[in-house]
Amino acid sequence: MNILEIIAKKRDKKILDKEEIEYFIKEYTNGNVTDYQAAALVMAIYINGMNDEEITNLTIAMAHSGEMLDLSVFGRNVVDKHSTGGVGDKVTLILAPIIASFGIPVAKMSGRGLGFTGGTIDKLESIPGYCTNISIEEFVENVKNIGISLIGQTLNLAPADKKIYALRDTISCTDSIPLIASSIMSKKIAAGANKIVLDVTCGSGAFMQTYEEAKMLSETMNRIGKLATKETVCVITNMEEPLGYAIGNNLEVIEAVKFLKQDMPEDVKEVVLELGAYMIKLAGLGENIEENKQRILEKVRSGEAYQKLIELVKNQGGDTTYLDDTNQFAKAKYILEVKAKQGGYIASIAARQVGELSGYLGAGRVRKEDPIDETVGIILKKKTGDFVQLGEVLAYIHANDEEKGKKAVEELQNIYQIQVEKTQKLKTIIDVR
Amino acid sequence: MNILEIIAKKRDKKILDKEEIEYFIKEYTNGNVTDYQAAALVMAIYINGMNDEEITNLTIAMAHSGEMLDLSVFGRNVVDKHSTGGVGDKVTLILAPIIASFGIPVAKMSGRGLGFTGGTIDKLESIPGYCTNISIEEFVENVKNIGISLIGQTLNLAPADKKIYALRDTISCTDSIPLIASSIMSKKIAAGANKIVLDVTCGSGAFMQTYEEAKMLSETMNRIGKLATKETVCVITNMEEPLGYAIGNNLEVIEAVKFLKQDMPEDVKEVVLELGAYMIKLAGLGENIEENKQRILEKVRSGEAYQKLIELVKNQGGDTTYLDDTNQFAKAKYILEVKAKQGGYIASIAARQVGELSGYLGAGRVRKEDPIDETVGIILKKKTGDFVQLGEVLAYIHANDEEKGKKAVEELQNIYQIQVEKTQKLKTIIDVR
Repeated sequence: MNILEIIAKKRDKKILDKEEIEYFIKEYTNGNVTDYQAAALVMAIYINGMNDEEITNLTIAMAHSGEMLDLSVFGRNVVDKHSTGGVGDKVTLILAPIIASFGIPVAKMSGRGLGFTGGTIDKLESIPGYCTNISIEEFVENVKNIGISLIGQTLNLAPADKKIYALRDTISCTDSIPLIASSIMSKKIAAGANKIVLDVTCGSGAFMQTYEEAKMLSETMNRIGKLATKETVCVITNMEEPLGYAIGNNLEVIEAVKFLKQDMPEDVKEVVLELGAYMIKLAGLGENIEENKQRILEKVRSGEAYQKLIELVKNQGGDTTYLDDTNQFAKAKYILEVKAKQGGYIASIAARQVGELSGYLGAGRVRKEDPIDETVGIILKKKTGDFVQLGEVLAYIHANDEEKGKKAVEELQNIYQIQVEKTQKLKTIIDVR
Repeated sequence: MNILEIIAKKRDKKILDKEEIEYFIKEYTNGNVTDYQAAALVMAIYINGMNDEEITNLTIAMAHSGEMLDLSVFGRNVVDKHSTGGVGDKVTLILAPIIASFGIPVAKMSGRGLGFTGGTIDKLESIPGYCTNISIEEFVENVKNIGISLIGQTLNLAPADKKIYALRDTISCTDSIPLIASSIMSKKIAAGANKIVLDVTCGSGAFMQTYEEAKMLSETMNRIGKLATKETVCVITNMEEPLGYAIGNNLEVIEAVKFLKQDMPEDVKEVVLELGAYMIKLAGLGENIEENKQRILEKVRSGEAYQKLIELVKNQGGDTTYLDDTNQFAKAKYILEVKAKQGGYIASIAARQVGELSGYLGAGRVRKEDPIDETVGIILKKKTGDFVQLGEVLAYIHANDEEKGKKAVEELQNIYQIQVEKTQKLKTIIDVR
């Protein structure tokens, strides 16, 4: 077997077998296959596609290209969730303690985010003292003791995926369903999941811009899940406007904490209930989705979910007084009003542009080693379908640089599309597959 | 403009415009576009193709990526010839002095060959004293004085083609008509040609294995020639068996010298006459191809062509006594008979396998810096269509390593396909386009 034959096969639209895919992944990971050979093969995959078996073999090969998190001590129903990415997505922070409050083990290892805001791990770090960098032994011990632990990616999970992901960015091969699907699924499998609930975001602020694309990605991941014997459910959610009201790092932590104290933005609630209900189902603790949703609401109302968050934070060294009084969180220097330039109904708040604005304010990072600003971001006051008066506050910009803040105010004014005719609230849950 | 947009366009089967192609070639040559980005684009070109305008723009951009040989001092009819490669191809050594004997300027710069034997420049160097590395000024001066000069590639011609050519080898993208056609034509244009006669070899020993492929490549190059205003003629020639009887470096030089002394193997003669007649036509010295062929034969019979070779070799410091008495050329230590294992008619002598055998004996090189053995090679005694008795000599192996020589004898015995039924001589000239 050699890489030239493998490239030629995919170039000629033939099907690669398991051994060929494993060979490519192994040799690319260890550097025997060069970046330009991988680039040629990735482009051939992009153009000529892959069938389900090939995508599954690619997924499994990438999952096994580095260390694997072994969560088998927690049984066969280790459920994980993953989102394909969006703006204002604080769902993991909310859902993890809820799920743990059902007695379902939550052992979650997350990478740091690249993008408009930090990832879940970055957000957790805005709670003073919270330690995301603990040993695997301690991590597993935590889950055994209190049923939950959320840490950073201390293992070298799916390094082949990391290399291919970075390469794709530089050769215009990002938006390929086989490559996206295998990337997501390989990371989840390497992170020890047996059952996977996927939040497939869809809309202008998401990777999948249309429902058709989101459906295709969902179906591909479901088929990979089936072939890889990892039961998978995909919830297609709306990402035309940001999720919830807060965008930023500690701003989102605050929104998540408040959610668990029953201050639940409608769209966030719908996503949390839908994903959570399927996680409970996959964990084998309830077949009825509507009943599961009610049970989740009960866990929030009773305070059990919030108590689980307190337990988690305390157990990893975090200062829980920040949760009890979220006013303690550090604030940005400038909090600027964004006022409506006309009266009427909000027609759209393009999620992608809001995300870019949050990145501009300093909430995100471009390279792994970049610092992020925990305090900056955006708080929306009005969302699509709402009515505003001329001059009424639409949102607040949280900035540490006055100039940037002022510029962001103007930008956000333009991002808000307002019209005279009545508009509708967006549908949050688009489909479940 | 940026490389990601350019890659994405070709990935999506769109047409690249002139500026985009120029941008890619310029930035790849100077290293701003990486090998993996070029690999992705080359694969996209391989799969999705290019139209004639794109191929022409690619050709011209590659031709202009480095130094250009300026032969305008010799007028508008600077004719060059090029072969797409074969085994036993000594046509340039014969044709260059013939053409020069018509008063048509021959100013030819050739690269060193990679493959089964050396290139024309390597072959010329087996004449002691012949200097292939002279200044451009001296080169042009030679052509002014005696009408001919053949030297090595002292200018940095078409470096973009060199990079892309080397890359294609490592990513299974060699056999693409747009990429082959632009590579050949860019080198010819950079080398100063205004009119180009191409020997498009076809058969098991050639890059183009079938007539259909050879025709397609020819038509593509003709269209590039037209769009680039470089008049082009393609002669499709047979490369099922080696051309002539000699394969090796000084063995081929000897066959070429003998040709100019009227010892003309039939197939070599046909190729020389066909290519030469079109070169004369393109030079504006005779429209009638059949008449041109007779005029070429006359130049050989009269000894004018041979005298031009003597002049060329003398002018570049070579020892012309080797030409007058070719027995002076160094010989290999072992000259071994290859005898027929059965009687009958020769059905085939697979050119590619004979070429590989010559490489095995040491006549060729894999890397530019490898040495070549001038003396080793193969002399065929029988060709396709000939009758042999059992035990009759089919060929001679010229080797400097006895073991290798013996192994080559056995191999060549097996390469010769002999059958009871009568076979035909191969048709040498397949088509002219």
